[in-house]
Parts: sequence; C-alpha cells; structure tokens
Amino acid sequence: MNTAGSPQSTTMNAAHAAAIGGAGVGAAAAADPLFDTYAERAHGLKASEIRALFAVASMPEVVSLAGGMPFISGLPLDQIADSLQRLIREQGATFLQYGNGQGLPRLREQIVDVVALEGIETRPENVVITTGSQQALDLVTELTINPGDVILTESPSYVGALGVFRSYQADVRHVEMDADGMVPAALEAALADAQAAGDVVKFAYIVPNYHNPGGVTLSLSRRREIVDICRRYRVLIVEDNPYGLLGFDGEPLPAMQPLNPAGVVYLGSFSKTFAPGFRVGWVIAPDGFRDKLVLASESAILCPSNASQMAISTYLETCDWRAQIASYRDLYRQRRDAVISALEEYLPEAEWNVPGGGFYVWVKLPPGVDSRDMLPRAVESQVAYVPGTAFYYDDRGTDHLRLSYCYPTPERIREGVRRLAGVVRREMSA
Amino acid sequence: MNTAGSPQSTTMNAAHAAAIGGAGVGAAAAADPLFDTYAERAHGLKASEIRALFAVASMPEVVSLAGGMPFISGLPLDQIADSLQRLIREQGATFLQYGNGQGLPRLREQIVDVVALEGIETRPENVVITTGSQQALDLVTELTINPGDVILTESPSYVGALGVFRSYQADVRHVEMDADGMVPAALEAALADAQAAGDVVKFAYIVPNYHNPGGVTLSLSRRREIVDICRRYRVLIVEDNPYGLLGFDGEPLPAMQPLNPAGVVYLGSFSKTFAPGFRVGWVIAPDGFRDKLVLASESAILCPSNASQMAISTYLETCDWRAQIASYRDLYRQRRDAVISALEEYLPEAEWNVPGGGFYVWVKLPPGVDSRDMLPRAVESQVAYVPGTAFYYDDRGTDHLRLSYCYPTPERIREGVRRLAGVVRREMSA
Repeated sequence: MNTAGSPQSTTMNAAHAAAIGGAGVGAAAAADPLFDTYAERAHGLKASEIRALFAVASMPEVVSLAGGMPFISGLPLDQIADSLQRLIREQGATFLQYGNGQGLPRLREQIVDVVALEGIETRPENVVITTGSQQALDLVTELTINPGDVILTESPSYVGALGVFRSYQADVRHVEMDADGMVPAALEAALADAQAAGDVVKFAYIVPNYHNPGGVTLSLSRRREIVDICRRYRVLIVEDNPYGLLGFDGEPLPAMQPLNPAGVVYLGSFSKTFAPGFRVGWVIAPDGFRDKLVLASESAILCPSNASQMAISTYLETCDWRAQIASYRDLYRQRRDAVISALEEYLPEAEWNVPGGGFYVWVKLPPGVDSRDMLPRAVESQVAYVPGTAFYYDDRGTDHLRLSYCYPTPERIREGVRRLAGVVRREMSA
Repeated sequence: MNTAGSPQSTTMNAAHAAAIGGAGVGAAAAADPLFDTYAERAHGLKASEIRALFAVASMPEVVSLAGGMPFISGLPLDQIADSLQRLIREQGATFLQYGNGQGLPRLREQIVDVVALEGIETRPENVVITTGSQQALDLVTELTINPGDVILTESPSYVGALGVFRSYQADVRHVEMDADGMVPAALEAALADAQAAGDVVKFAYIVPNYHNPGGVTLSLSRRREIVDICRRYRVLIVEDNPYGLLGFDGEPLPAMQPLNPAGVVYLGSFSKTFAPGFRVGWVIAPDGFRDKLVLASESAILCPSNASQMAISTYLETCDWRAQIASYRDLYRQRRDAVISALEEYLPEAEWNVPGGGFYVWVKLPPGVDSRDMLPRAVESQVAYVPGTAFYYDDRGTDHLRLSYCYPTPERIREGVRRLAGVVRREMSA
C-alpha cells in the first residue's frame, strides 16, 4: 500500500490522532473564549478511546475488532421494512407523535415477557423505557451520585459506564474479578474499607453476563453472595445486562434482580439482541426509584421516541424474535470460535479467557507490550481494538486489550488477529 | 353523562389527582427505602404540570388545549410509510446500527439548509443532533450550570426548560416580556443587578419566535439590542427556536445567532415542523462548545438514533417539506383564528394576545380566578389547559393560563373555549 501524501494517508493520520486521545479537543478547550461559561463538571469531559474508534472502524480497509456493533445484516430486513410500512400506514399519527414519558405501555408489557426469560417477574408499571441503556446509566447516576460518592465495579469495567460515572464526579473503585466474575470477598472488603473511612458507597455496578470487556460470567452462587452482601451493607446493585440472552451454551443464568427486587436496579437493552439503531433500552426499578427515573427522563428528553418503540414492539409481535436470538447465538459462537482459534494460532504468547457468550474477549499481552502505545501502529497495520486502559478508572490496563468478535466475518476476524499478532511481535522485538 | 362509580369516572379521578400535582409521588418518596441512596439533585425532582396533562389529554372526551402536540394527520403518511420501507430495504444495515455521536453527516448538511431560511450561515461540523431539543436543553445546562448559577429568561418561560434548569439547581430570574418579546432594558438591569451582587450569570434563555407560552415574537431591533447587551456582559445566549418557520404572516425574522455566532448557542427541532415521534432536534454552537456538547451527548446516550435520523433525512429528500410547512402554517392560522374568535365570543372578560405564529395563546383571567385551583374543575367539564404557574420559576402565574390551538380541529377548539368560559364564569360567581 502506498502511503506518503495520498488522501488515504491523510484520513489515516487524522484517525490516528483521534484514536490516541483527541489532543485537538484539549488544545481547543484551553483557547475556548467561552471557558468561563462552563460548569465545573464540564471541565472533566474528555474524548473516550471508544468514541475515537468509531472513526477508525468505519474505514473499510481496517479490520475492526474494536466496536461492539451487532451484526445487523443477520436480521430479516425485508420483513422489518414491510412491517414498518404497514405500521405507519395504519398508525402513523401515533408513530410520529409525542409519547408517554415512561414509555409505550404495549412495549413495557412485551419487555416483561423478555425479562421473564432470565427469571425476572415484574409488571409493566415498573419498566421505564430509555434512549438505549446508556441513557439508563446516565439517569441512574444522576439520581444517586453526589460528587465524591463511591461506585464499586468490576476490574475492568464497561468504558461507557465509567465515562458517565466520571461526568458525575463519582469515586469509582474497581473490585477484583476472576473467571467467575466479581469476587464476593473483595467486594465485602471494599465495602468494609469504605465504611471504615466514612465514604458513601451508592451502588455496585455489575455486568453479570459475558462481561464487557472481561468476557466472564458471574456464577450463580456468587450472584447470591453479592446480593446478600449488598443487602447487608444497604447498597444498591445496578445490574447491567445487555448480553444475557446471547449465551452459547444452554439456558441463561437467572438475573440478580429476583434475589432482591427492592435493592436492584436492572438495565436491559434491545441493542444487542435486535438493533441499536432505535436506541431503546429499559430499566426495572423499585417503585420510588422508578418514579424518580421517569421524572429525570422527562427532564432529559420529554419522552422516548414513539417511532422507535412502536417499531420494536411491532418487530416483537410480527417476527420470531426468539428464533432470531437463537440464530444470533449460533453466529456469534462461530465468531467466538474464530477469534479463539486465531489467537491460539497467531498469538500464543498472549493469554485470554474463552467467553461463554456475548461479544468480547479480554486479552493479556506478552510482558512489555503496551496496548495504548501500540494502537496507532495497529491501525497502520489495519487492525483496530480497544486498549485495556479504557476500562479502568485509574491508570491500569496497558497490559490488556479488548477484542470484539461480533461484527466481522470469521475470515476477517482471523485476518485481524493475524495482523494484530504481527504488530505485537514487532513491539516485542523493538 | 353518568359518573357515579362508572369505570370512566375512576379514570377521570386518577387523572385529576395527577393533574393537580402528583401528590402520590411525593408521598411515596417520603416512605422510599432507597431515600438515602439519592443524590441531592434528585430530591428536587417533582412532577411538572405539563407531564400530568399527558394523561388528561389522552381521554377522547376532553378537549385538550394543553399539550403542544403538532397535528400529525396533516402529514403525507402513506408517502412517509413507503419511503421508510424503501429506506430499510436498501440501507437497513445502517438504519438499524449504532451511529455517529454528533449525528448523521447527511442530516447535518440538510439542517444547514433548514436554518438558512432564518438567516443562519453554518457548516455541518457545527451542528450537533440531539434526542429532541429537550436533550439539547439538558446538555447545554449540564455544560454550564453549577448549583446557584443564574439563568435569565422571559417572564413567563417554557415549562420544559424551567424543569431542566431546576434539576441542575440553577437560580432562574425572569425578565419582563411585552408584546415585542423580552424587554432589553429589563435584561440589562437584571445583568447589572447580578453583577453588583456578585452572582454568576451563565446565559440568557430566549424563545424569540411565537413564544411558548407567551405567543409573542422578539422584534428585530430588540434582537440586536439583546445580542449587544449580552456581548457586553460576556453572557451566552441560548436561542431556542422550535416555531420560527411556523409564522402566519410573511417571511420569518432572522435568528439572533448570525448577530454573534461566537456568543449564541442555537437550538432547533423537527418536532413542530415535521414530527416529534422521532425525537430529533439539533444545536448549532461555537467550536469549543460544540466539542463539549458531543462528548456530553455521547456520555448521555452514546449516539442519536440512526433510524430516526435517516427517516427524517429521507423525508427531507423525498417529500416537499417546504410545501408541508406552508400547509401547516395555513392549518395553524385557521386554528389560531378559531381560538381567538372563540375567546372574543365566549370569554370577553379575559385578555390575550394574538400570536403571529406557533401554537399558543397566553390568556389573562378575570380578577380572582386562579388557573391552578380551577384546573380540576375544568377537566371535570372536559377541557384541559396548562395553568400559568407552570411557566414561572417562582409562584407567579395563577392569573394566567396557556391555550394550545395546534392539535384540535377548529370546531373542537371553539367547543373547548366554550366549556372553559363556563368554568371561568362559575369560578367568578363562586
């Protein structure tokens, strides 16, 4: 490939600059004539590593093992197109109108059926529909966190959640996670330490299934232990479960929410099991919390999109969504197999887990290789990933990276891992 | 109509309870076992009068002059249905996928053309797409307001904005407004007072066209004066303009943004000129502010809905949206005429302005009639409105109410005003 001075290399360089931290944005802020207008919380905003990667991932020559984009082409697009046409012809005046702040009642009923698959018994009145589960994270944090309040979460933890926690000036503490998920004894120690120090812990943020980025699943016995510990310390659990139905082996484990419905705020999403383009997620919360959530959501967006909600409701009614999820499970299992076998073949010096579902494998690099330093060179070699540093509130993570196997085909995944192995090898000998 | 014990009267009573302030929510909060978990900002959340009215307005027997719902049935629904079907068949894998945090580039180009109609010259890079302009209000406030910071706004002001300002613990001060909009001398006095008191004024929030709820339009000379005053005091202007293209007489006045692009954050929306069901609005902001907005929006929702944005982009491309807006102008002019002539006929004791566009007329009640006290009795008489108190940060507004003429037919509007006049008459003789 030729590079010097070509338009393509220009694009690539801009992408590099973005991928390594958005230095341009920082420089602009310092010279911003509106500087004095910003609130204190705004000064802490910075470009996340995952954000910049949207630009990189969109270049067709790059194999992106970075973003968590579901494989939408696996959906029955023609059927969805036809059912949406009918929906607008028949109910256009509702489809295009303002809706209810809490979300469409019919869709809330359907969500009750979806979450029943993971053992949750709830009623439509306790479901609040949000603009993706990202908005749910934002609202839950807005409702609970005063600056300096503590959030406990896995080590590592979801980058999008950490960004929200940072924007509300939370004190985030990582709790040890192993192959069975968060370690209960470590959680209890963190709670005891916080209590001894007089710190206010507001919630434990946990992704129990096919963790992002860890790939691991919280075992059934640990779910019980963690719920008991949090109940004892009177600390809320925020259970974030976008991947629970995307397991490769057998039935999903029951959610934590049923173990203590009064002490768990549960977050779900259609983004991974159906389509993120509609931006529809949901929260199941105890009554008092639910009331506040609805008010906070109305303040933030008035109401979720009727168009999006009716489109999803119609999909759930007219398509065999359970069969679609089963077909996604097969598809993602093949891709998981592809990434694991490629790692075995091309990068045996690294270490990784074998995820039982979801989108991600968490890779420990050979000693001396820094995932953040390496990223620009990886993108030059036309492969993208997310450096481990994105998943920590502190400076850890340089020795890890996250590979997403959800979007590229198995062949592209193998090619991506081959390219990545070449880059790692060069780092080791540098 | 029979009432005693019928299911219908049960619905009605629940709606009454909601409309008069959501007492149930407050009581639940006091007994909420999660009370200690909430952040300080969450304790101030309360049900707005406009929120409760969604429930009332949905009962078919009530003439709702309350909500600002556009008349969606005026749109070419079949054409929209067909173009969406084609869009998903041809570009479904993008339609259903995650998008760009700042918003779809093509739609941002189209927005540049839309705002040019009001004299704004900008580039797609300076447009940030949001989940309705409500999210824009939320993000702008999040980025600027520390607790106690001052926001200056018209007297009265938009209820949805006041709710957001309250949730960020702003100190909102109302500035006199007359038939030509906000009074510049009053704005300058408020700024001087704040300066003298050492208070930090972060922005002036102004709805320049067909004010909600005031119905008035800021004159051209005042736009210049207000921009000059804010420039002198180094205070940002937040120009919120959902109704600018819905004027009944001639061309729209130019926006304030072109008078000082570095000092104005401009908010626009497709909710009134096309359809609120997609929840798509936008912000045009100076570079530094734009960068922070994108980051804050990504933290709040990751990205706006590709489905919604592509649907609107396709509508703008395939339908004659300018002709549609012209047809809406005719439709809403007829409804404005209906509400004004009905007020003249049925309620001559009241006072009102004659709005030159938009959705609202602001009515001053005869002495001694309290718009908030009267609301439950109005709903019993099957007419709904928003009490003036919703539009003040303080306790004013009991002597006013807002009537929306956008949604009901002219016949229903006349009937609604007739019912309202009966209620007012009874209040006066009580």
